[in-house]
This record gives sequence, C-alpha cells and structure tokens, in this order.
Amino acid sequence: MDATIRAYEDFAVGQSFPYDRKLMTAEEIIRFASQFDPQPMHLDEEAGKASLLGGLAASGWHTCGVFMQLAYEAFIKNSTAQGAPGVTDLRWRRPVLAGDELTGSSTVLDKRVLKSRPHVGLITFRHTITNQRGEAVMELDNPILFALRNPQKEAGA
Amino acid sequence: MDATIRAYEDFAVGQSFPYDRKLMTAEEIIRFASQFDPQPMHLDEEAGKASLLGGLAASGWHTCGVFMQLAYEAFIKNSTAQGAPGVTDLRWRRPVLAGDELTGSSTVLDKRVLKSRPHVGLITFRHTITNQRGEAVMELDNPILFALRNPQKEAGA
Repeated sequence: MDATIRAYEDFAVGQSFPYDRKLMTAEEIIRFASQFDPQPMHLDEEAGKASLLGGLAASGWHTCGVFMQLAYEAFIKNSTAQGAPGVTDLRWRRPVLAGDELTGSSTVLDKRVLKSRPHVGLITFRHTITNQRGEAVMELDNPILFALRNPQKEAGA
Repeated sequence: MDATIRAYEDFAVGQSFPYDRKLMTAEEIIRFASQFDPQPMHLDEEAGKASLLGGLAASGWHTCGVFMQLAYEAFIKNSTAQGAPGVTDLRWRRPVLAGDELTGSSTVLDKRVLKSRPHVGLITFRHTITNQRGEAVMELDNPILFALRNPQKEAGA
C-alpha cells in the first residue's frame, strides 16, 4: 500500500485533526434548506429572527454536511476509510447563522480492530465544530472504519 | 393559533407518521457527495462495488437530508416545530444504493413540557428509514421542540 495513504495504524488515541474554515453564506443555507429542510427559520431572515435561533440559521443537517466536508479534507481524504456505522451522540449546541465561519477538529477517542473482520479497524472520533468566536456549535461522537495497512502484524501484536 | 397547525398537544406517545417515497438517483447521490462527502464509493459505481457498500452508495449525511425532507412533509410542515437539540443515536444499518426508493416513519417515544420554558415541549421520535425491500437503512432517535397551543392549560393539567 502507498505509504502516503493514512491507514488504521496511523491513528493514535488522543491525536487531533484541525479543520480548515468554511463560511456559511445565506445563499448556501437557503439552498440546502430548500431541498432538505424547508422550515421558515432556515429560509428567511425575518422568520429566523422570530424563532428560537435568532436569525437565518443553517439546518442542523447542513452543519452535518459541512462538518463532513471539513473532516474529509482534514483526515479522510487519502485514507483507507470504509464508511461509518453511525453516530452515538450528536449535539446541536448553538445556532449556525448566515455569516458564521465554521472550523473545529476531530480527536481520536478510541480504536480497535474488528474481531469479525481483522483487516478493518473501528476508530471513534469526537468531532467538535466551532464558530468564529470559538464557541462549539455542534459536537458528535462517531466511529469510522479504516482498513489496516498490515493486518497480520496488527493481529499478532 | 390556527387549529390546522399541529402543536405540542397534538402528538401522542406511540403515534406514528408514515413518510412518502423518495427515489435515490445516481445523479443526486453524486451531486450531494461532490459537495459534502467526496469519498470514492459515493462518487463512482466501480469504486462503490469495490467497497464494503457494494455499489454507488449515498453518503450517510445525504440519507439524513432525505430523512429530514420526508419527516418535514410527514409532520413538521404546518406545525409549531422550533428545531432540535440533537440526535441521541443514529445507525446507518444498510447501504443506500443508486435506484433505492426510501420511505419509513417517525414514531413518538416520549413527550414532556420544558420546566425552563413552559410554552415549549420536547417530543422524542424514533425515525426509521426503510428501502423498497422494507429493510431499515437508517434509524435515529431525535428530540424535537414544539410550541404549545395553550401553555396555561398544559401546565395546569
């Protein structure tokens, strides 16, 4: 396997992967919401101001998509990632409003090789998405499958 | 309040809201993935076949967006929904492949009025998304905030 590809063995518990920055524009918020989540506070500034969210606010599922984009660039691209079985806990902690700039990081909480498929390991991440004030807007805990570079060696370790 | 608007009081524990159907096209799968989750199995049929997913497969976050679209039409549209604090557990149980037709339902697990904000209640749903073979492809447990129609009455009950 290409040594520049990040495999299961290359992740360490406690390791953290910082994200790039992503500006949330009103246009993108409205476009996503129009397709997937057309609630008034995701489509219209005035309706957003009248809601608990306090302004034109991204759908929480849009924030999930942007998180995936940031995580992809941070550590999934050029890796042996094989998909994910789910999310154990997802918290939308603060509204994401038009003009907010998102960033954050993913930290390795735990890793283990699957007994049923010893060429694949499960790495659990805590992903934290923050805004331009450093406030957490979303957190999620999420195990991701990565193929091993060298299954025999890891099994024998 | 307009009586045709579904408020907190109109949901009952055990009540279920069936979804419409949504065909997952290769074009939509690739368009979503190109923007948010450009892993090879979400962009290319051959890469999908070579992966654990077995074909051109939707990003799990795309399935979340489509779930939101289906849930919106089923019971959030014309309601007092105020957003959601998060998701307690999300399971991607089977791949969603190009050509799959998704449907499913949302069932009320629990409801309670917030002590801190007695005009708003939290209703917890189990959302189950199924394919054309009736297999669950995704499940998630998710509390959603709904305003009360008549806060005084509910508080005094």
